[in-house]
Amino acid sequence: MKAAVLVGPSKFDITDVPMPVISDNEVLLKVRACGICGSDWRIYLQGPSFANMKKMILGHEFTGEIVEIGRNVSGWELGARVIVDPYIHCFNCAYCKQHQYNRCMVYNCVGITVDGAYAEYVKVYPYQMVPISNKISDAEGTLFQPIACGLNVARLGKCTIGDTVVVSGAGTIGLTTMIWAKAMNVHRLIATEVSEARINCIKENGLADMILNPTKDNIVGEITKATGGIGADAALECSGNRKAQVQTVDYVRKGGIIVAFGTPYDDAPTEVNWSKLSAKDLTVRGGLSAGSHPGGYEFSVKAVE
Amino acid sequence: MKAAVLVGPSKFDITDVPMPVISDNEVLLKVRACGICGSDWRIYLQGPSFANMKKMILGHEFTGEIVEIGRNVSGWELGARVIVDPYIHCFNCAYCKQHQYNRCMVYNCVGITVDGAYAEYVKVYPYQMVPISNKISDAEGTLFQPIACGLNVARLGKCTIGDTVVVSGAGTIGLTTMIWAKAMNVHRLIATEVSEARINCIKENGLADMILNPTKDNIVGEITKATGGIGADAALECSGNRKAQVQTVDYVRKGGIIVAFGTPYDDAPTEVNWSKLSAKDLTVRGGLSAGSHPGGYEFSVKAVE
Amino acid sequence: MKAAVLVGPSKFDITDVPMPVISDNEVLLKVRACGICGSDWRIYLQGPSFANMKKMILGHEFTGEIVEIGRNVSGWELGARVIVDPYIHCFNCAYCKQHQYNRCMVYNCVGITVDGAYAEYVKVYPYQMVPISNKISDAEGTLFQPIACGLNVARLGKCTIGDTVVVSGAGTIGLTTMIWAKAMNVHRLIATEVSEARINCIKENGLADMILNPTKDNIVGEITKATGGIGADAALECSGNRKAQVQTVDYVRKGGIIVAFGTPYDDAPTEVNWSKLSAKDLTVRGGLSAGSHPGGYEFSVKAVE
Amino acid sequence: MKAAVLVGPSKFDITDVPMPVISDNEVLLKVRACGICGSDWRIYLQGPSFANMKKMILGHEFTGEIVEIGRNVSGWELGARVIVDPYIHCFNCAYCKQHQYNRCMVYNCVGITVDGAYAEYVKVYPYQMVPISNKISDAEGTLFQPIACGLNVARLGKCTIGDTVVVSGAGTIGLTTMIWAKAMNVHRLIATEVSEARINCIKENGLADMILNPTKDNIVGEITKATGGIGADAALECSGNRKAQVQTVDYVRKGGIIVAFGTPYDDAPTEVNWSKLSAKDLTVRGGLSAGSHPGGYEFSVKAVE
Repeated sequence: MKAAVLVGPSKFDITDVPMPVISDNEVLLKVRACGICGSDWRIYLQGPSFANMKKMILGHEFTGEIVEIGRNVSGWELGARVIVDPYIHCFNCAYCKQHQYNRCMVYNCVGITVDGAYAEYVKVYPYQMVPISNKISDAEGTLFQPIACGLNVARLGKCTIGDTVVVSGAGTIGLTTMIWAKAMNVHRLIATEVSEARINCIKENGLADMILNPTKDNIVGEITKATGGIGADAALECSGNRKAQVQTVDYVRKGGIIVAFGTPYDDAPTEVNWSKLSAKDLTVRGGLSAGSHPGGYEFSVKAVE
Repeated sequence: MKAAVLVGPSKFDITDVPMPVISDNEVLLKVRACGICGSDWRIYLQGPSFANMKKMILGHEFTGEIVEIGRNVSGWELGARVIVDPYIHCFNCAYCKQHQYNRCMVYNCVGITVDGAYAEYVKVYPYQMVPISNKISDAEGTLFQPIACGLNVARLGKCTIGDTVVVSGAGTIGLTTMIWAKAMNVHRLIATEVSEARINCIKENGLADMILNPTKDNIVGEITKATGGIGADAALECSGNRKAQVQTVDYVRKGGIIVAFGTPYDDAPTEVNWSKLSAKDLTVRGGLSAGSHPGGYEFSVKAVE
Repeated sequence: MKAAVLVGPSKFDITDVPMPVISDNEVLLKVRACGICGSDWRIYLQGPSFANMKKMILGHEFTGEIVEIGRNVSGWELGARVIVDPYIHCFNCAYCKQHQYNRCMVYNCVGITVDGAYAEYVKVYPYQMVPISNKISDAEGTLFQPIACGLNVARLGKCTIGDTVVVSGAGTIGLTTMIWAKAMNVHRLIATEVSEARINCIKENGLADMILNPTKDNIVGEITKATGGIGADAALECSGNRKAQVQTVDYVRKGGIIVAFGTPYDDAPTEVNWSKLSAKDLTVRGGLSAGSHPGGYEFSVKAVE
Repeated sequence: MKAAVLVGPSKFDITDVPMPVISDNEVLLKVRACGICGSDWRIYLQGPSFANMKKMILGHEFTGEIVEIGRNVSGWELGARVIVDPYIHCFNCAYCKQHQYNRCMVYNCVGITVDGAYAEYVKVYPYQMVPISNKISDAEGTLFQPIACGLNVARLGKCTIGDTVVVSGAGTIGLTTMIWAKAMNVHRLIATEVSEARINCIKENGLADMILNPTKDNIVGEITKATGGIGADAALECSGNRKAQVQTVDYVRKGGIIVAFGTPYDDAPTEVNWSKLSAKDLTVRGGLSAGSHPGGYEFSVKAVE
């Protein structure tokens, strides 16, 4: 089959590779569409050495069609269209044993550690798949990974009626987070973003009640003013920008929640005012991908359909 | 009455001051004993300018005897011995209205913003007092503020059977935190401390299963090894030391809890690896004084008696 | 002043009584409007012996205007319009000490155990009052007690996006519960009600996605069918009807929540299939008045304004 | 192989049956010991018609030794000794998809719906097994099902320091619940039991601070008195006795928790005072087997070893 194989920094080889061979417990999918994640971009720039490999097939946000089913797999039919949670669980570590699969100690992910969907075919396990109806196109199906991530962020931030919620960063995750927070009917959603294109996207889709631009606005001052000096109920940090991370402890109210989702590209630390965590009785909750709440993909598909 | 009035950096005046005059809703206490908190020491060094005052009477960890009762106060008798939660609530801000008094927007605290117990008499509100029996001496009574803080920290860390818990720093709060964590029957308590005197205190009282000294031991390495590579369930950070704070995200397991209680003396930031908060699905919970769980003083007195 | 004094079963005396005299900590209100609660009706039928009294002044859902302020009370001005949480706390029992005022062991309530608002004037404590703006009329102000109760019920039922929620009974509390559940954007709200008038009210206001009438419909069967055999996520029982209570364990899904709010008029027991609580991993959460979540009145006023 | 086949009410046939044949995903165990559960007894009396079968092999509390391993199974070795969680998950229903396996809609359980361990050999899935060391004998291994159930009950009751906890019924689950509640260091454990033999067992093992006998003692009165009129923090109902179930709402404090674990033998309802659920702000939490907290078996084995 044809695949785009990453063979070096910024270097793809479009070439023929052997078809994936499924075990009795796996399913073979024909790839119908595949998205490009920010992390794909990051790996592309660095090359396969990112994952200590010499070459790799990226692609973890994809829609597929079942074309072969392992003999131990039941409940699925050839031809079904599915979206895929790319994470693979070991089912054997201390976390998997407690059904906390998102914390699996053996990190495996389609398109990161095993061959992904920048290819004609890809193999997955049944537990990774969620069926989709015709209401969802192949292209739309590739968006469920970020949609499920945004759901995770909004849930970790305990978004509900009456809340003032700040979403910093309007990349794919920031935008899907805004959509979910709006669905949870928060009182006021404040978005922060530097890109005019993204700001327009927020405006056109009515995703925020207030938009602040860190290059022009005093973020902490404006949010404090907008909340009558109290501060926001939750900061959903999706930008990965260090300055945005630092500010969260300043504009969140006492007893508020900060969700740490966005991560920077490098390994430098974030200079956190640790004393404010204590003085303001804050909670910082890290959110990893879509996984903190099981069933997020199913929930997302149901919500969109 | 006599009082120790702080009039400048490291400068107390032992002098005569007017007796406190209680309102109808207050109670006058004769001070029977008063402790010296780390924050007293900090204010002493800086002088009353710490609280934007020209002079102040410190003292917020004390045992008192009721000597006068406001006419609107009921349920208390002259001569009763009490310990005191030094925090005063405004009952009128957004937090007090929700009974989250520890988050009161009008910060007031006996011995910090109003006259304290480095004096013969001090006035308090009835809701601040907890009666103590003869089983508790005057001197012991002064310890309930840190005891209630330690309870708060151990509860925020969700200490329970099976857990491996790290308490960093064996100052007063660190030690009371260890006592409570032990009472909650954690599986293994690892203490980190640099002072030999404090390490001996931990040993003599059997408060920890393992003691690490950051000046000699590889903290992250030892904790990781002791937990079979998984990491600790909770880090209860009581030292206020920045290096200790930074390490928590490294030695806590995926999905673990970090309680941020200790605060540094200066305003410099702590260099946190923010990406690990996300990658490890961590929760950081700030703990302010004893207040996150109402009734902590009553609970502590009942437990000690 | 004039008051409607309940002097026997179904017997009011409209008569002159002495004005209430406030203490230094209380406030005197001129009553501007007062609602009639279902419990008022119940007490009216039974007479003041309900509360072991010979005569009593009912009325606990009211709007007032401040006409006198005790000298220890600050932060309020004459002429301000307020709504009132009728519960009075002792501040001294084991629960009040933990700020769980709704569980106060000394039950006191304006209009039930002390004189209420079926009179020209009534006295209250400042902590019971929430100010309202001109956007809320006197008559509307009387509705905040049931509105805050409905908020409590919807919160106890953890209503959120995706949920199928059943509200049984469309009395005042049932209706306010539906409004809040809708605000929390539940996926599907199923109402059960016998009265055609109330069913029309639900329909006209678009409060439910599906309405079932227990006199005509198979409640358990219809809900089970509507949820694809899984069952509802939450049952918010507001009718107080025993049959409706019994059915909850049948139509709620495994792991679902039943909120027990409505109470019958008599003391007969409800015949619960206890084994299903276990077999279905259910949670039954009793909800008392508006109190399980502090600040419910303030939240409600803010939401309506 | 030899097996005890239930062929009618109270009628076992000790006979030869075909060996179980494992799939590629299963493991064959030689049964080393098997306990007799109360539910085994119940099924024995009723015969295989209990499960709509003509004949069945009971036995779900057992210790086994691995004698054959399916070719898709990794991480296990022949000869290893294991205990077994008898529940089988479908991995495909709405609950399994959310990793709430204990709520699986396709009920399957070794020894109840599929052949169990009253036989020389039994087949299981790897996810059901927990390895045990030589510190645990074959006979002791059969106890982990009730031990894990007791852990579940004590956790659902949120047992912790300071709590007064009532465990009603000292059968196997009641006793293991007491052991866990003691391990969680509750302040006071009150046991209720009618059998003198069981009462002696509680006494000899020091499992309770107070023992009440419903045939002699006023349960509600004694518990109320012992708690100074406040009531117990939690009722862990393990007897399945209806009178014991009814009493829980009377002796639990306001805001307390009732865990509904024990179930009666027949289908008659329990006459619950539903109004008290509301008036006392109670929570009733059903607990099904060991499953509400994943990893309970692993946790139990680790705790015992």
